[in-house]
Amino acid sequence: MISASPSGEQFVHIHRVCETIEEALEEAEAILITVPAIAHEYYAHACAPYLKNGQMVVLNPGSTGGALAFKKILRERGARMDVPICETNTLTYICRLVGPSRVKITSRSKVQFASLPGKKTMECYQIFKGLFPESTERKNVLETSLTNINAVLHPPGMILNAGWIEHAKGNFSYYCEGTTPAVARVMEKVDKERMAICQKLSFKSDRFLDFFYKAGSTSERAYQSGSLYQALQESEPNRFIRAPENLSYRFLTEDIPFGIVPMAYLGRMLDVPAPIINALIDLASIINGIDYWKTGWTLEKMGIQGMSLEGLLNYVENGISA
Amino acid sequence: MISASPSGEQFVHIHRVCETIEEALEEAEAILITVPAIAHEYYAHACAPYLKNGQMVVLNPGSTGGALAFKKILRERGARMDVPICETNTLTYICRLVGPSRVKITSRSKVQFASLPGKKTMECYQIFKGLFPESTERKNVLETSLTNINAVLHPPGMILNAGWIEHAKGNFSYYCEGTTPAVARVMEKVDKERMAICQKLSFKSDRFLDFFYKAGSTSERAYQSGSLYQALQESEPNRFIRAPENLSYRFLTEDIPFGIVPMAYLGRMLDVPAPIINALIDLASIINGIDYWKTGWTLEKMGIQGMSLEGLLNYVENGISA
Repeated sequence: MISASPSGEQFVHIHRVCETIEEALEEAEAILITVPAIAHEYYAHACAPYLKNGQMVVLNPGSTGGALAFKKILRERGARMDVPICETNTLTYICRLVGPSRVKITSRSKVQFASLPGKKTMECYQIFKGLFPESTERKNVLETSLTNINAVLHPPGMILNAGWIEHAKGNFSYYCEGTTPAVARVMEKVDKERMAICQKLSFKSDRFLDFFYKAGSTSERAYQSGSLYQALQESEPNRFIRAPENLSYRFLTEDIPFGIVPMAYLGRMLDVPAPIINALIDLASIINGIDYWKTGWTLEKMGIQGMSLEGLLNYVENGISA
Repeated sequence: MISASPSGEQFVHIHRVCETIEEALEEAEAILITVPAIAHEYYAHACAPYLKNGQMVVLNPGSTGGALAFKKILRERGARMDVPICETNTLTYICRLVGPSRVKITSRSKVQFASLPGKKTMECYQIFKGLFPESTERKNVLETSLTNINAVLHPPGMILNAGWIEHAKGNFSYYCEGTTPAVARVMEKVDKERMAICQKLSFKSDRFLDFFYKAGSTSERAYQSGSLYQALQESEPNRFIRAPENLSYRFLTEDIPFGIVPMAYLGRMLDVPAPIINALIDLASIINGIDYWKTGWTLEKMGIQGMSLEGLLNYVENGISA
């Protein structure tokens, strides 16, 4: 494994490679699950028999609702232990695979971190911040899940450029050319719907633009303008990233079912209208011929179906239903 | 005015040019209003004082709900006369303005025709078919309004190519390059939602593909394939039509508020789900910064708010509420 930046290209030693999940988990203190959200269900089932008290799981990232869904599967599998399931709101590195065993890391992300149950967040964060000192802690996994910024950034561009992506097989600059004023307006609306859900849950989320600027992804001038369009036009790290070659790409296949679908369900549960989030999910489902309302994290899969607002806040704090 | 095809280029004599609506309407038997739907409201107000019994109005085309909305305005203006308000489902010609006073007509359309009230459709059609013998009559204006095929054809391509249109300023072939498999799937879904509303109103509509083929717009092979994608790829008349230069074009500004918005309201009134039609309206509203749910033909503007299915069918047949 090669880390190319910021400290130059280097070989990264892996402490130990295991052949089975059982072996990998045996002596682990913190179990970082760094896979696309579509694989979380698989890993929950794979880990369930071997997790032990005193360990912690970290979904890196949890997308939207990852920790909730992971814990629900552990409960269903009858796991009795009390392992905190933590998540970050986005991946700890901005990186791309550039060849076999070669990863280019552009930057370390300032991720947000929380645990389910929320009452163990501080305890878990003490361990996590030893690995990722740039990270900050949030109260509970609703706060990390609802700051899944990929869910704001990716679906509008995919849907509003669906024809272009298919026709040109992705041969254009996704974030720069693909984010036109209309696309940016839809992103801003998704972001507002997301923030309205946060507000209903009694916490204040930064705007997408704030995260984007603080991560060093755009210029001071663009940030001051308050325009998401300008922020994407002036995003140096994103300037040359090509659009996906087709529509079966994680910007839809991950960020719809494990990004905006759980947000939409949370919005519905809390009576917060989210028409544009709903519209993107409906269109993505037709575009890819998959009912993302069913394949994504539903309230039932997240284990929070039928809860009141108070019940939900109690559950994420204590990890047990009242 | 020059008609270029099918009979070659020729000068078209206009019988009489009037300076006022009053003068134009004075001796008219059939009043053809051939304007974009966005101007129907204006013409309803302008004509209201001068319409007389024995005349008929034809909205060419009525888009979706044009005749209903026109009649509602006449009622509000206190017009007491009993002038049938007719509409076609699409424009009587496929044509483009090619220069000052020059229009290129590619073909005459096989339009559908109906009157409000429906009980006068046959009487009015006798006059109309003298002008347009290729036309066919339908039972009432719900049937013409719900076969507004532009409403199926245009919005999906505009929304799913919004980024491309803005970036390239429309410099691609709209119907051919812009209709990729994903775009065609969304069109097919809009068409199914439209047909489900027709079914609830107890009439059977042809598919978009049937209209498109019968109009000579695609090949026999594409028609037999049943694929809307292939039908658009093999559409000779549409092959070289460029995409609009921006998103403030009638494919959205007309076909959303006077096309799929009234369809969506009818669907809601009749308990027919139309999620993709709704999604396109919501996205178009954000894209253009206009709430098309409000600016388009609502049930109230069409004068049918609060009617039951039976009440609605009675109204379109008799022109008066039960």
